[in-house]
Amino acid sequence: MKAVRLVETREPLEMQEIPVPEVDPQDVLVRVKAAGICHSDAHYRAGVSRVDPLPMTLGHEVAGIVEKVGSDVTGFDKGDRVCLHYLVTCGHCKYCHMGSEQFCTSGSMIGKYRDGGYAEYIVIPARSVFHLPDEIPFEEGAIMMCSSSTSYHALRKTRLQPGERVAIFGSGGLGMSAIQLAFAMGAVQVFAVDINPEKLKQAELYGATPINAKDDDPVQVIKTNTGEEGVDVALELIGLSVTMKQAFDSLAVFGRLGLVGLSEGQFSFDPYNEMMMREAEIIGVSDHLAQEIPTLIELVRTGRLDLSGVISETIPLDADLINQVMDNLDTYRHKGRIVITP
Amino acid sequence: MKAVRLVETREPLEMQEIPVPEVDPQDVLVRVKAAGICHSDAHYRAGVSRVDPLPMTLGHEVAGIVEKVGSDVTGFDKGDRVCLHYLVTCGHCKYCHMGSEQFCTSGSMIGKYRDGGYAEYIVIPARSVFHLPDEIPFEEGAIMMCSSSTSYHALRKTRLQPGERVAIFGSGGLGMSAIQLAFAMGAVQVFAVDINPEKLKQAELYGATPINAKDDDPVQVIKTNTGEEGVDVALELIGLSVTMKQAFDSLAVFGRLGLVGLSEGQFSFDPYNEMMMREAEIIGVSDHLAQEIPTLIELVRTGRLDLSGVISETIPLDADLINQVMDNLDTYRHKGRIVITP
Amino acid sequence: MKAVRLVETREPLEMQEIPVPEVDPQDVLVRVKAAGICHSDAHYRAGVSRVDPLPMTLGHEVAGIVEKVGSDVTGFDKGDRVCLHYLVTCGHCKYCHMGSEQFCTSGSMIGKYRDGGYAEYIVIPARSVFHLPDEIPFEEGAIMMCSSSTSYHALRKTRLQPGERVAIFGSGGLGMSAIQLAFAMGAVQVFAVDINPEKLKQAELYGATPINAKDDDPVQVIKTNTGEEGVDVALELIGLSVTMKQAFDSLAVFGRLGLVGLSEGQFSFDPYNEMMMREAEIIGVSDHLAQEIPTLIELVRTGRLDLSGVISETIPLDADLINQVMDNLDTYRHKGRIVITP
Amino acid sequence: MKAVRLVETREPLEMQEIPVPEVDPQDVLVRVKAAGICHSDAHYRAGVSRVDPLPMTLGHEVAGIVEKVGSDVTGFDKGDRVCLHYLVTCGHCKYCHMGSEQFCTSGSMIGKYRDGGYAEYIVIPARSVFHLPDEIPFEEGAIMMCSSSTSYHALRKTRLQPGERVAIFGSGGLGMSAIQLAFAMGAVQVFAVDINPEKLKQAELYGATPINAKDDDPVQVIKTNTGEEGVDVALELIGLSVTMKQAFDSLAVFGRLGLVGLSEGQFSFDPYNEMMMREAEIIGVSDHLAQEIPTLIELVRTGRLDLSGVISETIPLDADLINQVMDNLDTYRHKGRIVITP
Repeated sequence: MKAVRLVETREPLEMQEIPVPEVDPQDVLVRVKAAGICHSDAHYRAGVSRVDPLPMTLGHEVAGIVEKVGSDVTGFDKGDRVCLHYLVTCGHCKYCHMGSEQFCTSGSMIGKYRDGGYAEYIVIPARSVFHLPDEIPFEEGAIMMCSSSTSYHALRKTRLQPGERVAIFGSGGLGMSAIQLAFAMGAVQVFAVDINPEKLKQAELYGATPINAKDDDPVQVIKTNTGEEGVDVALELIGLSVTMKQAFDSLAVFGRLGLVGLSEGQFSFDPYNEMMMREAEIIGVSDHLAQEIPTLIELVRTGRLDLSGVISETIPLDADLINQVMDNLDTYRHKGRIVITP
Repeated sequence: MKAVRLVETREPLEMQEIPVPEVDPQDVLVRVKAAGICHSDAHYRAGVSRVDPLPMTLGHEVAGIVEKVGSDVTGFDKGDRVCLHYLVTCGHCKYCHMGSEQFCTSGSMIGKYRDGGYAEYIVIPARSVFHLPDEIPFEEGAIMMCSSSTSYHALRKTRLQPGERVAIFGSGGLGMSAIQLAFAMGAVQVFAVDINPEKLKQAELYGATPINAKDDDPVQVIKTNTGEEGVDVALELIGLSVTMKQAFDSLAVFGRLGLVGLSEGQFSFDPYNEMMMREAEIIGVSDHLAQEIPTLIELVRTGRLDLSGVISETIPLDADLINQVMDNLDTYRHKGRIVITP
Repeated sequence: MKAVRLVETREPLEMQEIPVPEVDPQDVLVRVKAAGICHSDAHYRAGVSRVDPLPMTLGHEVAGIVEKVGSDVTGFDKGDRVCLHYLVTCGHCKYCHMGSEQFCTSGSMIGKYRDGGYAEYIVIPARSVFHLPDEIPFEEGAIMMCSSSTSYHALRKTRLQPGERVAIFGSGGLGMSAIQLAFAMGAVQVFAVDINPEKLKQAELYGATPINAKDDDPVQVIKTNTGEEGVDVALELIGLSVTMKQAFDSLAVFGRLGLVGLSEGQFSFDPYNEMMMREAEIIGVSDHLAQEIPTLIELVRTGRLDLSGVISETIPLDADLINQVMDNLDTYRHKGRIVITP
Repeated sequence: MKAVRLVETREPLEMQEIPVPEVDPQDVLVRVKAAGICHSDAHYRAGVSRVDPLPMTLGHEVAGIVEKVGSDVTGFDKGDRVCLHYLVTCGHCKYCHMGSEQFCTSGSMIGKYRDGGYAEYIVIPARSVFHLPDEIPFEEGAIMMCSSSTSYHALRKTRLQPGERVAIFGSGGLGMSAIQLAFAMGAVQVFAVDINPEKLKQAELYGATPINAKDDDPVQVIKTNTGEEGVDVALELIGLSVTMKQAFDSLAVFGRLGLVGLSEGQFSFDPYNEMMMREAEIIGVSDHLAQEIPTLIELVRTGRLDLSGVISETIPLDADLINQVMDNLDTYRHKGRIVITP
């Protein structure tokens, strides 16, 4: 079968012809119908984040059709529409048992530590496979499993409650999902902070109050629009010191800051005046959980989370095209998500 | 290997010589060191509850030592001390994904739908295996996995909070665990209701306020001892209409009744006066969850739940002796739990 | 000032001229701008539910403008738009301290145990007064404080989570709020059950799936529409045995039934098969809480809960007209809520 | 009546003869039986923290006997044993309504912004008065209302669950309560970190694992004792940068750090490696809540929290003795809490 693979970091991905993978008793073989190109994939190509072993088929946002089912697998049949949890976990370590499989002691991510979805087929244990309802196109089912699920996990970790106000720093793929999910969970106002006017325009379509951080101080705008109170939940999706500080400063009493964006460097605060005096919280956010996916699927299926506007283009399984998309991601020239449809 | 099996219902169990089971890639083979004789096992022998297929090795309260590990299993090695979750579940249906595997669409219970622990060896997927700390004897590790875990699950379902008051109707194996667990979770008073003076004496040793329902009206005693308020949580572990009614009537405002005991017949209440006027809740309780076991193990390991007083006797893997224990269970002549140590 | 009062039960209400009430240091005097006519008020007139003492100014759904503020009151000024919590509570009993003031040991309801809002003015402790945002008309602010708040409380007691499915039995004032609030809290499907086609049509406008219980079996329709699973939350707002049974039977695994409708008689269920086997819950629902009102106000202010369609008519403070409305309530000939605007 | 008052900061407190305060309709007059000398009181005398107006009767840890009850107050009678919530709040601002009265927009603390308990009598609104059970001596009832309640609030804010491990940095009054409360809430191991061997000895009596930070690196000891995992909850009660860092570094995956100690300066961390990679949380902790006190009282009443060992001495209402105690507090020469018994 065809697979677009990372053969050497800092080099273009290459199309390779490799065998269709074997199906172990616990496995499901999926014919890939859609694989999202995540910004992380560009980082993998650039060698910023570890991929092991090489060559590796990239792609961790995957939806498709069941082609073959392992002998021990119940509940899935050939022809079923499915989407994939990007973590393959052991299922029996302490963290898996407790439903916190993002910390599985032997977990491995598809498209990073085992072959992913930039291919005609992918094999994966049934434990990481979810039924995809007919109402959800494969393209949306694919990207839902990374950016949307991370945003949903972040809003759960920050314990968003109905009636609360939210600020989302970063209006890319995660941000667009976060805005809609926040409303779906009962938020009454969502501020979208970015410096890209087009993204902010789209955020506004989803009901968000847009703030262009190039033109205005987000903290001031948020305070002014909330009777000087601030927001109950702020998500930082970018990973910059400056936006972390803005997100933190925009919190109301009992406000919770979710740190999602991959950042470098340090973050510093005044424990007494900035944390204790308003009982603020800072919460680290990692990968989403399998247990969150059924709800996420329901929210997409019923249109509470609409991903149609997030996908800008679909492309065939072609190494040159994929490399070109990644070049654009590296230089932030892309708009919206691009999905491979092999 | 030797195994004590149900060959035909309403007949004594028989010792059979059967092959040591095969170890599939996901499996762990465990040399049984302790297998509790649960009252349910006597019901299985009596044909009251379905066992399928026959013959079946009974025993769902199992602890032992890892003998062999399947090729795909990480985290377990030969010689590890372990205890077993009695449910074998698929790991990928909706309920398994959500951590509610007691409703797994293809789950099966050991000692009921697949061979259990009344044997020298048992094979089980790693997913149902837990490390047993050195501090916990095998006997306690075995019975912990049924009666204690059910009680813990019931106290979580009824959302017991620190500072609350509890009433436990039934002071058998589940009750003894429930009393101690309630205190470990912060209960300030626990009433133990039973008609067996010896059991009530033991309940008192664990700090409970004993009520002999033969001598006193439990509802009246509870009301008198709580300033006429009642208890915040009541667990019904027996399954009789009369004790369900008493447990319900002993609830305070916001009180929660957990129904645990296997019952027949109907339960009837006055929605307005008995439920709405005090915002009471009635909660159905089923099997415990894998995610609850790590905490339970910690509570036993550190002595917050002391099971030493619950085990009255250990016996060898002998069909006659096991049948005799079951006869006593059927006629309620036993005291404490009896554990097979093959 | 003018006040429409219950002078004798089973007799028409009468207009009386009574003094504007005194303002104690903790009190706020409110010029009534809107007072909803609740079905309960008709019950009070009919003598079905106790009112004490007589004569009593009815009306517990009240919004208006602050006319005068007691000497100890901070945070309210003459001219402020406000809406009233219908419970006047002590603020220092065990239940008030714990934020469960619906069980205040000396609480009294306006329009039932102290003069209510069918009048030009009402006096009430500041503790029961909430700021009403400019975006919310007085009429909506008034009815929000009874039917909407009860529905919101019921959905919180039944712990509705994003992604869940809901069934609302009864599409009157409470039901219309419950449908919208369920969606605002993240429900993905809401079934509205009633026998009145007009109400069901309105429920459909709010996004509900209507079920006319005259034509179809609600349980069957719900099961069919949920892949035979059922709903996660069911609210019974009517108080009939038949609808309680239907609501209970429509529950999915882990389903929660909230009992809200004032009922007579008994409710009966099978503990093992109907509760334990699906870990179902039955939850008594009483009055809402002050702590829930700020969120409710935000949901109405931002249009997540739209009450404009619920009010069918406004009438002046006139005893004859009010009596006529109550006659219609008694015979179920009304449509929508009618609000007095003195 | 006699009152020991702060007349000028940086000067010794003085005994003054002032009138017994008036009792407004909402008030309760309490004859002080015990008033704890909190370290904060020494700070007030030293002028480090604002007290307004002067002169001011200090003392915010107060228990006593009801002497007189305001005309509107229900539920309290002359002769009742009571303890006092140190915050006097409005009861009707947004925060009071939501049960978050520590942020009441017009709240004032006794012994700081209104006369406190270093006196024969204190007057306070009934809203801040709690019944003190006969089982709890006045001295314990007094100190319970500050250090114990803060610790309890901190453990609730950090969401301590049964089965978890805890580290308490600082073994003074707050620490001694925190250790016991953590066990009462189900903690299976509690590390007590301090540099005072006597305090650590007492901590050990309460079941804690003592760590002398002078001799050992707390982080290393905690890691070694938890299989390199760390603790689920860490409370920092001291307010030093070094202990904040240690507390943060001792967290396990999903660990929560509660910041309680009044600190100066900044705290800095690595968002990616230290927060996101383990989903850690940092939580600001402010004053406790009235709604938490009933549970706290129950835990003390039933001996789950034993305060007898925390009080080292009682002294009469004497300015010289009180000033001497404060001198010792300033130089850390005290051991245990000292309580005034007028």
